[in-house]
Amino acid sequence: MEEKGLLLIVSGFSGAGKGTIVKEFISRNNDVRLSVSATTREKRQGEQEGVHYYYISKDQFENMIDRGDMFEYASYVNNYYGTPKSFVMKQLEEGHDVILEIEMQGALQVKRMYDEAILIFVVPPHAKDLEDRLFGRGTETAEVIKNRLRRSCEEVDLIKYYDYIIVNDQLSDSVRMLENIRNAEHLKVKHYENLIDKLKGELQGIIN
Amino acid sequence: MEEKGLLLIVSGFSGAGKGTIVKEFISRNNDVRLSVSATTREKRQGEQEGVHYYYISKDQFENMIDRGDMFEYASYVNNYYGTPKSFVMKQLEEGHDVILEIEMQGALQVKRMYDEAILIFVVPPHAKDLEDRLFGRGTETAEVIKNRLRRSCEEVDLIKYYDYIIVNDQLSDSVRMLENIRNAEHLKVKHYENLIDKLKGELQGIIN
Repeated sequence: MEEKGLLLIVSGFSGAGKGTIVKEFISRNNDVRLSVSATTREKRQGEQEGVHYYYISKDQFENMIDRGDMFEYASYVNNYYGTPKSFVMKQLEEGHDVILEIEMQGALQVKRMYDEAILIFVVPPHAKDLEDRLFGRGTETAEVIKNRLRRSCEEVDLIKYYDYIIVNDQLSDSVRMLENIRNAEHLKVKHYENLIDKLKGELQGIIN
Repeated sequence: MEEKGLLLIVSGFSGAGKGTIVKEFISRNNDVRLSVSATTREKRQGEQEGVHYYYISKDQFENMIDRGDMFEYASYVNNYYGTPKSFVMKQLEEGHDVILEIEMQGALQVKRMYDEAILIFVVPPHAKDLEDRLFGRGTETAEVIKNRLRRSCEEVDLIKYYDYIIVNDQLSDSVRMLENIRNAEHLKVKHYENLIDKLKGELQGIIN
């Protein structure tokens, strides 16, 4: 019997570098499936359907919510963003590991629906690093950045509901940590029920 | 504040190769401390005090049991075998990871006293491998081997109380699995309370 895949969920403070870690992890572990979010916002220049997002209408999105087809969702600035459940479940059933890079609230929603999800939170060594990286991007105003830092401050108390922490200092170390988590989770005893049953049968055969 | 070390406990079917895995793991990760058992049996030729065992008298051993100084113990053929608690606890407190290679009953005893212990069980891909390895050693009678296999058969139903399984096919893979488990366990969120508090304070300092 095919062993079910693992659902790895990566969140982190804004500016902690989770996107880069996930991208590098996927490129080094191309058997892992990346879940692509759906959104009702318009496609921006350079974005591709099914790569950056699935672009769907508000009606379609709300129908999916009503049918329970969204693993998690949220709305920002009048647009929905969410994780379609069917793709993730199909991949897991087929034995593929799936990785999701989503916000904390979404991650905790998924965990409530799917307890086996493995929650990983990315933090910087120092809070100052967040500020530096956000300013370094040069794409956002000081006010937007302050809001992001304020949100990080609110998120701090919920980190305890995650399973693992990655302190993102060097990218390559962080990617290796994610690989370590994935490999170790595959060794959890709950994944070996079939093998244990098989060994039991074989042992009984030998001693009788 | 110094982070406490991890207590890794490796058990496995007789003949599954756990001793070899632990030995190789220690030689590759010499920051991990190996816990040495105490015994009341006599020292055999070639054995060294503090390397193979601590050799103590029956009185000393029973005093240690009475004082709660044994993490786990058992008696075989009129001799006691056990894990002195003080060494293990001291190393853990000082931040060193400790590895114990002990029988299933002892491992479950330790887990009851020290819930943070990480229990790892080593199995072969096929039960036949156990028989082959035990006979291959050429040191035991068919009857002794059959008893060992019978005990393995009894142990099967308790494997579910372990945290991880290592299917020992290739030694180098098995050692890597043990390393993966150790590394991932260090990333568990419970080890990061201090860092999370620190980040919270820093974030508050930035946004206020």
